[in-house]
Amino acid sequence: MSATNLPLSGARLWDSLMEMAKIGGTPKGGCNRQTLTDLDAEGRALFKRWGEACGLTLTVDRLGNMIFRREGRDPTRAPVAIGSHLDTQPTGGKFDGVLGVLAGLEIMRALHEAGAETEAPLLLINWTNEEGARFSPPMMGSGAAMGIFTEAEILAKRAADGAVFGEELRRIGWQGEADPAALQKVGAYLELHIEQGKLLEDAGLDVGIVTHALAQHWFEVVVEGEDAHGGSPMAGRKDAMMAAAPLISAVEEIALGTLSPQGEPGRGTVGVVEVHPASRNVAPSRVFFSVDFRHSDPDALARMGEALTARAAEIVAARKVKATVTPFWYSPHTPFDPTLVARARDSAKARGLTWQEMPTAIGHDAVYMARKVPTVMVFCPCHGGLSHNEAESITPDWATAGLQVLADAALATAGLVRR
Amino acid sequence: MSATNLPLSGARLWDSLMEMAKIGGTPKGGCNRQTLTDLDAEGRALFKRWGEACGLTLTVDRLGNMIFRREGRDPTRAPVAIGSHLDTQPTGGKFDGVLGVLAGLEIMRALHEAGAETEAPLLLINWTNEEGARFSPPMMGSGAAMGIFTEAEILAKRAADGAVFGEELRRIGWQGEADPAALQKVGAYLELHIEQGKLLEDAGLDVGIVTHALAQHWFEVVVEGEDAHGGSPMAGRKDAMMAAAPLISAVEEIALGTLSPQGEPGRGTVGVVEVHPASRNVAPSRVFFSVDFRHSDPDALARMGEALTARAAEIVAARKVKATVTPFWYSPHTPFDPTLVARARDSAKARGLTWQEMPTAIGHDAVYMARKVPTVMVFCPCHGGLSHNEAESITPDWATAGLQVLADAALATAGLVRR
Repeated sequence: MSATNLPLSGARLWDSLMEMAKIGGTPKGGCNRQTLTDLDAEGRALFKRWGEACGLTLTVDRLGNMIFRREGRDPTRAPVAIGSHLDTQPTGGKFDGVLGVLAGLEIMRALHEAGAETEAPLLLINWTNEEGARFSPPMMGSGAAMGIFTEAEILAKRAADGAVFGEELRRIGWQGEADPAALQKVGAYLELHIEQGKLLEDAGLDVGIVTHALAQHWFEVVVEGEDAHGGSPMAGRKDAMMAAAPLISAVEEIALGTLSPQGEPGRGTVGVVEVHPASRNVAPSRVFFSVDFRHSDPDALARMGEALTARAAEIVAARKVKATVTPFWYSPHTPFDPTLVARARDSAKARGLTWQEMPTAIGHDAVYMARKVPTVMVFCPCHGGLSHNEAESITPDWATAGLQVLADAALATAGLVRR
Repeated sequence: MSATNLPLSGARLWDSLMEMAKIGGTPKGGCNRQTLTDLDAEGRALFKRWGEACGLTLTVDRLGNMIFRREGRDPTRAPVAIGSHLDTQPTGGKFDGVLGVLAGLEIMRALHEAGAETEAPLLLINWTNEEGARFSPPMMGSGAAMGIFTEAEILAKRAADGAVFGEELRRIGWQGEADPAALQKVGAYLELHIEQGKLLEDAGLDVGIVTHALAQHWFEVVVEGEDAHGGSPMAGRKDAMMAAAPLISAVEEIALGTLSPQGEPGRGTVGVVEVHPASRNVAPSRVFFSVDFRHSDPDALARMGEALTARAAEIVAARKVKATVTPFWYSPHTPFDPTLVARARDSAKARGLTWQEMPTAIGHDAVYMARKVPTVMVFCPCHGGLSHNEAESITPDWATAGLQVLADAALATAGLVRR
């Protein structure tokens, strides 16, 4: 039997997406189901019920990663894993992450319904804390599983509100006993995700087949000056906010001005800004802000970091403040597996779908998986490229096309067999 | 008897300043005794003991303003009031406000020690929440007493942590029963305060005699764009932070570039910045910031506000975001009383002190008092103009000079009589 004959249901996938979106649903139609909150626990419980209803066996590891297994004809073969994440940003949408998990579930449901078997076992994974919104950095569950972070450092991470990752994981009842590093032995990993950009929509394509991940580099910037009363003359001030503002503007200027040999600009974001002492009539003594730089060209990315440091030095010299620019997180250029990419492409061709090959500019669990395991991603278009936004949206047809390519590539890898 | 013969003790004043500074004292030598906290209550209790020890009678009004009275020979005369505030900024110093209150206390102690009398009664006031750091706006106690705010609105104010002003006032046990509006019938008001600038220090002068208050205008700015993932292309973004950054820079540019006919620039401060949703890999959808504009020339101040609105409109047009610039608080150009100014000048001359007449660029309880009551302020130099800063400092000689001018002007107004 080929995956084309499986009773994959785009409608059932869509219904499950809408059902899951009720947990943490916001008045604007988005979703706020941040990692390790009570709502995360509620989402996990629903996913557990759904997985068990189609015969899957659940294992939870020490970081809260949920791993459903569907046995293969040959239990000794390395399993083929499908996964993504159910956690969202504080003002997230219904699809970022959730689409990939529930598309994997739909494949399991269709196999169950058809009574179909695969040679290799199948896994379906919900990774803990992909978003990195409540506990930074992002992609903790997959990163720790792949040995990029240690378990101990992840369990000790603190949220801005003082909550500790390990304590929150136990509090919501989702710390298991399995070793997350066991996932390094997976034979292949496949992930469907919304594009979070608008290249596919603008080009009118059904799916994106992701060939590699762009390098990204995150920084923390601290500017330190001196408190001064709002009525004091401007001349003597060492105002940290007035020094930080042009450096924040420089993040955008550097992103737009640092071009690849093909003339492509980078991406720069300042998502967090904290001011001290935060009183209306006190010129701040200290400003912290985060910088997220990405570029398709690793050399250009390196130049972006250098340009930020240089600009900070200019501002320090001109304003007699201090500024420190500290690298916080780095993700290298990461190629995906050519064989899996070819299987996804073959599926799109066979299904009569339109597609393009493309990189991801965004970190995903798949990017960490790719360090140890043959990996591919499939992108689903999203309206206006909007993501990390309550207005994030996709069409049921797009979701179905992504589901089909994901299923075909995964089942070609695992070896679908007629009973 | 003249005030020159009173046993005023600069050393005793200094000791009391150091004693009071222990309550909320910070490791860096500053003070964190924010309004309506437990530490504020502790400072108030110490001040109460000190005042009662020199025969003063305490009244507390419904806003927590503490009013000590020293009876005059003629109890029917309108009292002469001295006052300032004991509350501090979160990273405040030892002298801002406290100097004025404890200099008034030193005058009461010297009168008590000398067994001296005045024709008019004397009042010594500790105003509630001058700083406006925990509950905004500043100068609530004097403002409400002078009818600029209603009691009800003040009692309902909320801190950023959700605390309600009236509840906190009762919790710390400092809500009295007196009518704050009774203070509108005071015959004169005098306040000694540190300059919070460095004009006096730079000019090598002993005291400043304040002739008027500069106009100030505070605004709230909200920039609204759209959330976008940090990996999304720059082209489609409506990043509220990247729109806010040049507008924050414009606050400084406008302050420096808006000159009075005499060529004097204004002052501009952005003390509070809040970013939403505050995630490192999300371009913010919303940025709030405060603007504090001041100018010696009311027309120039008006132009500053217009320039901010115009700059916001330019940014809105260029970046397809929304921006609202809302006036939040305004304090007009306020002249002080010429007779009281002359008495302070006469004192400086008679004492052989050096002085200059100057405006205040900073709001003080005296500025609200001046709306209803003949008022003057005396400024004490402060090192480097540093204030709202833990490193704020003055010399004992400066404190003594300010004390002397305050005492002379107050007692000349109240009518000091030999027993």
